[in-house]
Amino acid sequence: MHWIKLMFPKTSCRRQHLPIWQVCTQRAFSSHLPNQVTDGRVDQPSPQAEAAAEPEGLILRLPKGTRDFSPKQMAIRENIFSTIVSCFKRHGAETIDTPVFELKALLSDNWGEDSKLTYDLKDQEGELLSLRYDLTVPFARYLATNKVLKLKRYQIAKVYRRDQIITTKGRYREFYQCDFDIAGKYDPMIPDAECLKIMHEILSALKIGDFLIRINDRRILDGIFTTCGLPETKIKTVCSSLDKLGKITWKEVKNEMVNEKGICPEVADRIGEYVQLHGGVCLMEKLVQDPKLSQNKQAMEGLADMKLLFEYLTLFDIVDKISLDLSLARGLDYYTGVIYEAVLLHQQGDHFKESLDVGSIAGGGRYDGLVTSLNPKWGEVPCVGISIGVERIFTVLERNTGSWETLRTTETQVLVAAAQPNFLAERMKLITKLWDAGIKAEMFYKKNPKMLKQLHYCEERGIPLVAILGQEEMNNGVVKLREVSSREETCVPKEKIIEEINKRLGK
Amino acid sequence: MHWIKLMFPKTSCRRQHLPIWQVCTQRAFSSHLPNQVTDGRVDQPSPQAEAAAEPEGLILRLPKGTRDFSPKQMAIRENIFSTIVSCFKRHGAETIDTPVFELKALLSDNWGEDSKLTYDLKDQEGELLSLRYDLTVPFARYLATNKVLKLKRYQIAKVYRRDQIITTKGRYREFYQCDFDIAGKYDPMIPDAECLKIMHEILSALKIGDFLIRINDRRILDGIFTTCGLPETKIKTVCSSLDKLGKITWKEVKNEMVNEKGICPEVADRIGEYVQLHGGVCLMEKLVQDPKLSQNKQAMEGLADMKLLFEYLTLFDIVDKISLDLSLARGLDYYTGVIYEAVLLHQQGDHFKESLDVGSIAGGGRYDGLVTSLNPKWGEVPCVGISIGVERIFTVLERNTGSWETLRTTETQVLVAAAQPNFLAERMKLITKLWDAGIKAEMFYKKNPKMLKQLHYCEERGIPLVAILGQEEMNNGVVKLREVSSREETCVPKEKIIEEINKRLGK
Repeated sequence: MHWIKLMFPKTSCRRQHLPIWQVCTQRAFSSHLPNQVTDGRVDQPSPQAEAAAEPEGLILRLPKGTRDFSPKQMAIRENIFSTIVSCFKRHGAETIDTPVFELKALLSDNWGEDSKLTYDLKDQEGELLSLRYDLTVPFARYLATNKVLKLKRYQIAKVYRRDQIITTKGRYREFYQCDFDIAGKYDPMIPDAECLKIMHEILSALKIGDFLIRINDRRILDGIFTTCGLPETKIKTVCSSLDKLGKITWKEVKNEMVNEKGICPEVADRIGEYVQLHGGVCLMEKLVQDPKLSQNKQAMEGLADMKLLFEYLTLFDIVDKISLDLSLARGLDYYTGVIYEAVLLHQQGDHFKESLDVGSIAGGGRYDGLVTSLNPKWGEVPCVGISIGVERIFTVLERNTGSWETLRTTETQVLVAAAQPNFLAERMKLITKLWDAGIKAEMFYKKNPKMLKQLHYCEERGIPLVAILGQEEMNNGVVKLREVSSREETCVPKEKIIEEINKRLGK
Repeated sequence: MHWIKLMFPKTSCRRQHLPIWQVCTQRAFSSHLPNQVTDGRVDQPSPQAEAAAEPEGLILRLPKGTRDFSPKQMAIRENIFSTIVSCFKRHGAETIDTPVFELKALLSDNWGEDSKLTYDLKDQEGELLSLRYDLTVPFARYLATNKVLKLKRYQIAKVYRRDQIITTKGRYREFYQCDFDIAGKYDPMIPDAECLKIMHEILSALKIGDFLIRINDRRILDGIFTTCGLPETKIKTVCSSLDKLGKITWKEVKNEMVNEKGICPEVADRIGEYVQLHGGVCLMEKLVQDPKLSQNKQAMEGLADMKLLFEYLTLFDIVDKISLDLSLARGLDYYTGVIYEAVLLHQQGDHFKESLDVGSIAGGGRYDGLVTSLNPKWGEVPCVGISIGVERIFTVLERNTGSWETLRTTETQVLVAAAQPNFLAERMKLITKLWDAGIKAEMFYKKNPKMLKQLHYCEERGIPLVAILGQEEMNNGVVKLREVSSREETCVPKEKIIEEINKRLGK
């Protein structure tokens, strides 16, 4: 696999927050089929490309921010999905499905600012619909619509955001989310701890590299803001500045808060004293004894729960990857308690640092008010969940070309081959026997395929066995079974071929 | 499970072809969770329902023609999908993915009349997009965009049609399609035969009841029309009348052709002589010798290929379920050769008749021109494929309540339970050991759950084993392992618990 990075000047910038320069990626990935080039397109074609494009070529363009996945890419993705799903199932999760679009009102009421980024459908029949923006709001809607009080579910599905496209960071406008949520009234922090355990298990199993789970609590953060004298109206804008801490220095963050967002420098300094702290149980002890913060009831509730959570995380044996980080804010409005996100680390000298090229690879938190807000008359359904950023993980793992070279895109176990012309009928009869016995088998769709091409296909595709038919074999009532890796050939009586193949396949 | 059918008068009928009465289904399916009612909604609320609805209730409504799937329904669906996918994989198929929306121009150019039924997106950034209407046109676009000349792929994904909603027939506006296609230049009818073999294998494996695969060829049909003197401009409209044959009598079909569509009665009679024929190899012989039809080159090519196809279907051992049916037309424009669809049969007296309540449950055919039409300068990529009507199959299978009662919605193998209060930490430590060993395990999210409730949960959910922790067990360094079905209990030393559980689970 090779990567060609093309930079195009962005001549017209329809949306304000798009950068002047946008990195576009043209990839030629997976080429086991002749001339197969996948994902070969740019977000904004250069003037030259536009001039050269044929009218019929325009139809073949993909919508902005979307992509096709080739069989090889799908094999990598299915590896990732199956690792994630098997973890969700290991924890006893059920699954549900909801429509890809919802009433626009549901989304705009619950995604706040971000609902600007939804894809709206044309009003074709009096219904205003939008493509879902995440799986959390539809999940809450599912609970409220169907009056479900308790559910531990996972859902893997596509979501849609007309957001800035950065293909190198795995940021597209159509992308998968893998969500796991626990809805229901339970004792404090037990479901929260299991969510973090699941996140830890998945990121470990994916072998994506060293990671850290940063954790905070909305109540602690709100307590800090109140204690430091930040007006409530400024909380959101300060959160978005704080989110940059780690990527830029505190000095720069403070500068943005004071000069761009009009925060009083003393308030910013006071906030800075807290949000630069991170650690574990010791930090919590320190905060509980903090003369100012200890006066704030909300923060103390958050800290008490955090202490309990760390106890559980210790019992679950994952506390080494968890860091209480008071700068973690997370954008979404609906979080009410603990919040967390996982970042990749990369080694810098003798210590690990957050790897900035893909951003967070998983996130989540507690949202106790969302279901009630959708159906206030009904009842409380507190929820906590995680979302695995599978596209970013895919982007990181896809770069590891070496590990995927031998990854198969099919599961074919046997190729039924002809040693000489005029054996199509015999091949069809034999392959029918194999299929009916549940053996995964292919044959060439040619009347008289060449032996060498058939063998070459097996090597290319990693098919382990070839069942060869020819005149000599016919005369002797046998099939020649060839092991592709060793090139060893054995004649097997026709009536024993299924048994022999199953034996070779270790069944 | 019980079904409540509600009939609402259709007061306003926005789209002409909607019936005055529309059957709506309110289902209370799967209630293993307290108060869980899924899919409880109607397409068009009655005036009473509308008056009673709260403003916040409106947000909870689902878009018309869509539905939620509960965990139980998902378990049934996953059973269906896994049967289908395992068959596709048995035949060596790869998989790809394409975006849920495409450029509107691509769809309107290729779905003809039906493109009226697409969901269009609002023009939010200068791109005119529509949700995909099927998986065939996006597949052809994938081949043309990525310049792929050969591909045997399956794709399981949602498609969207603003069509008439008939929930009892499994007709929704958002629904899954399961497609398998073979693209590439090969010897005649070999890939076509494998497509039919796959259709046969899947429908047999799903145990959905007796079925018949009706088969025809566009070239034979066109030959018949030409021979009978039908003007080319009338072909499409006659096809749509012919599609009703079987549901209504030939007399009624003829009546429609003559009186509504202005076909000359003699032409209709001549067409009638052909399209009422169905059978196998004998029918083909008869047609080849037909003095008029044998003059038509196109029809003779179609018949020669059909003869070859039947030879291959005999070798594949599925010819008993295949019937050449000259009335089969299939609506889509892009078919160029063989076409087929599967229908369910039901026993009537001592013979089987087409079951009309769900319509066809699978279909497909050859479309050799579609890829070329998208990219004329590039090259020919002949294709043939099948599409499994999974929603209709789901509707039929879901009715079989009996067979699903014991179907589990989770795969949990062990519940880690407490025999008395204050054993949360011990449960957490034990369940961590189980998870880390790959055992699927759950525990209650309560500090002090009641023993009876924990056991009851296992019975309800079909969890086979309970690992019980209590003071006595702690003192003796053991875990009490209980088999839920037999209620047998054994004390197992803590260090041997994983081994013992794996033994019980047959690993």
